Amino acid sequence: MNIKLLLRILGAILLVEAAAMVPALLISLGYGEGDAMAFVWTILLLVLIGTPLRLFIKPEQTNLRAREGFLVVSLAWVFMSIFGALPFIISGVIPNFADALFEAISGFTTTGASIMTQIEGQPHGIMFWRSFTHWIGGMGVLVLTLALLPQMSGRTSHLVRAESPGPTLSKIVPRMGDTAKILYLIYGALTILEFLLLMLAGMNAYDAAIHAVGTAGTGGFSNYAASVGHFDSALIDAIITVFMVLFGVNFVIYYKLLTRDFADIKANEELKWFLSLYGVITLIVTLITLPDYGNVFTSLRYASFQTASIISTTGYATADFNLWPVAARMLIFLTMFLGGCAGSTAGGMKICRIGMLSKQALREVRHTVQPRKAMVVRFEGKAVDESVLRQVFTYAFIYILMMIAGGFLLSLEGKYDVQTNLTAALTCVSNVGPGLGEVGPAGSFAGYSALSKLLLSFMMLAGRLEIFPMLALFHPAMWRK
Amino acid sequence: MNIKLLLRILGAILLVEAAAMVPALLISLGYGEGDAMAFVWTILLLVLIGTPLRLFIKPEQTNLRAREGFLVVSLAWVFMSIFGALPFIISGVIPNFADALFEAISGFTTTGASIMTQIEGQPHGIMFWRSFTHWIGGMGVLVLTLALLPQMSGRTSHLVRAESPGPTLSKIVPRMGDTAKILYLIYGALTILEFLLLMLAGMNAYDAAIHAVGTAGTGGFSNYAASVGHFDSALIDAIITVFMVLFGVNFVIYYKLLTRDFADIKANEELKWFLSLYGVITLIVTLITLPDYGNVFTSLRYASFQTASIISTTGYATADFNLWPVAARMLIFLTMFLGGCAGSTAGGMKICRIGMLSKQALREVRHTVQPRKAMVVRFEGKAVDESVLRQVFTYAFIYILMMIAGGFLLSLEGKYDVQTNLTAALTCVSNVGPGLGEVGPAGSFAGYSALSKLLLSFMMLAGRLEIFPMLALFHPAMWRK
Repeated sequence: MNIKLLLRILGAILLVEAAAMVPALLISLGYGEGDAMAFVWTILLLVLIGTPLRLFIKPEQTNLRAREGFLVVSLAWVFMSIFGALPFIISGVIPNFADALFEAISGFTTTGASIMTQIEGQPHGIMFWRSFTHWIGGMGVLVLTLALLPQMSGRTSHLVRAESPGPTLSKIVPRMGDTAKILYLIYGALTILEFLLLMLAGMNAYDAAIHAVGTAGTGGFSNYAASVGHFDSALIDAIITVFMVLFGVNFVIYYKLLTRDFADIKANEELKWFLSLYGVITLIVTLITLPDYGNVFTSLRYASFQTASIISTTGYATADFNLWPVAARMLIFLTMFLGGCAGSTAGGMKICRIGMLSKQALREVRHTVQPRKAMVVRFEGKAVDESVLRQVFTYAFIYILMMIAGGFLLSLEGKYDVQTNLTAALTCVSNVGPGLGEVGPAGSFAGYSALSKLLLSFMMLAGRLEIFPMLALFHPAMWRK
Repeated sequence: MNIKLLLRILGAILLVEAAAMVPALLISLGYGEGDAMAFVWTILLLVLIGTPLRLFIKPEQTNLRAREGFLVVSLAWVFMSIFGALPFIISGVIPNFADALFEAISGFTTTGASIMTQIEGQPHGIMFWRSFTHWIGGMGVLVLTLALLPQMSGRTSHLVRAESPGPTLSKIVPRMGDTAKILYLIYGALTILEFLLLMLAGMNAYDAAIHAVGTAGTGGFSNYAASVGHFDSALIDAIITVFMVLFGVNFVIYYKLLTRDFADIKANEELKWFLSLYGVITLIVTLITLPDYGNVFTSLRYASFQTASIISTTGYATADFNLWPVAARMLIFLTMFLGGCAGSTAGGMKICRIGMLSKQALREVRHTVQPRKAMVVRFEGKAVDESVLRQVFTYAFIYILMMIAGGFLLSLEGKYDVQTNLTAALTCVSNVGPGLGEVGPAGSFAGYSALSKLLLSFMMLAGRLEIFPMLALFHPAMWRK
């Protein structure tokens, strides 16, 4: 184990986190609500720990092995979350450690599940930090570090692989550092565009910033208890709906748009699946909720927003889908598994995995009929390697197992019903945010015990890092010489 | 497509069904409750259709191809169920066709889910037929036909493969017909043993017969609304608990017991998984329900019975687990997926599949840590073929998809909640019987619409035949020249 290199990378990440806290510090200074010192102390601590790790540790070897890559990514996310929770604790907004850690992890993993019961009237700086964690976590903190410090390590593809969503890594350009820069430029530009549109639609700059970074990271924290529903504006709903869908798309698509590679975009299979699934689910939800809303426009407005919010795993709400007919709730439950495209900021199982699973299911049915016919699963025009297919299936299996096992462990509290516990576990591993029942859009996770919150925090991290890096920490081979 | 051979085999099955109705006819004649004619008419119809198919159709080719095997098995189960529903309709006990078909399919597939709301006071012959369908379906009707008419077809392994539970076919002796005979002898002997023990424990002969065939097929229909709870006897509970576990075990184990091949039994990996899972779940349920029952003995008695009932997919009840703490209900939900061993009469995903899935999940986690190390999944001491592994994962995926899609379609009725609809779909595809909520041990499936009942009937058949044969019917390649 190359401990020195690990520490050096961790140092870099802590420094990046310190820099990421500056905007929140400036906002808190601007509003003068007494929360600025919470950021000053945390930034000081990050710099004091990060600088020596970064500057004075000289690893002999700068190449990371696969397991070291997974280890550093897992540790980076844990430490980043612990330090990211400090402003909540120091400012007194969330005095309890388990609660503050849950909120920070929910932020960085872009889940958006909250234990806060009082949203309005909190200091502006703290609430901005809470939402800004979505933006940092959305594209990945190691990718960000790589964009800022490309010379961090010799071979970095293991790091990016562990942090980037999807079964395979899609490099835009040969050098990882350049890829990271391009990704963050696209990410930043789209976020600023949404910010400006939201201001044009009538939001003030602070609200627009909160909701732009929350959408960009597909997170879902709002500074209003009623979430986006607070604004009650069809225009704002429409803007956020469109951007939730946009941030659920593989960023490679936007790069190809910039390089005018339209043929590649048209051929993108995952994009077709994603948009078709989004369209079909929106249509069905619109029809199911039509009797409740009375007219197609209203029904479509709420259905398209909520479907975009769940499939992109953002979690904003303009309607409490807990009050929708049971068939619409079942569809929301189903959508919670899906997630966006690989290489987007969305969570969930990812559309390309769903596509491969479905095609393999069809192949197996056909194999029943014609057992001697040789068949392969093709995705994005290429035959999918059998080992990738096996990994995708294993991923889906562990995913569902985590939901059920998590739901069981939560139910040991004896507090909530089967539906609440199952969807609480699912919404955390999928990084969506709200679930059904007590943890629905109008509810919160505050009622769970500290132990349950730690469990859910682990599940959010596992979901964000796509399970294997977190589980690998518990495998004995990880720690063997 | 070898239509002639298909029809000839179907004819044989209809004749076997006619013979299988004779015990119920005799019972109805004995009790003289006016239901005898329902059996006379049905038997007459079966003989009139079955005899010409069997005797006068001479296929040129007696070898079945794989897809013909799946087709004949699927058709056999559908026709058998339609004719099996006739006594319910003709006698007027279940006048509605969708209801009667649901009840017959629930019987043959050994599910035990019921749409009857009035159980007590029905004719004895009809109620015996209802339970006896479990016994016929448990080991498989084609296996039974093969045991009675071994010269039915040249190559019969495709037939038995399609009907026998588990990812691989375990032949006891080289000839399929002899294997079928041995299986039925063991099956019959164990059923008679349970029948005698239940009589010794105080049941009358009729009740003992009903519950012996219901346990043997892991079905779960009882002639009392309170199910086995009606007898309120710890001894009867214990006997049925033990036999539910016994019928969840691969029958090959019993053959090896007879041939004194103890080393093979000790080495059987699936058996170890099955008994361990049963033990652990029983223990946890005992602990969770302890505060409710007040003492360990009572808690253990109900927990061991209910766990055996769910894991063997029988579905008998001595307690309404709907009233148990939520953690126990979650565990019941989880257990509904598992099922018994391959080659038993139990439904569910089957323990060997669960074992392979778990081992593959571990392999994939280890692969994360050591990506270059070559690893295989071993089960029953042998490396599992990658194509079998892939099939097992696809099976699990379709299984869970059927539960969720089925739950969604059921919820379109808008009648029941998410929990009821999800578990209704799961309990049907797993062939368990009761679910949670409205379809729990104290509830019934009577409240669903005719369309939903047809959907659930399809899911029960799909679950019993392990999905692929039923889905293959819908694949275009099935019907191509």
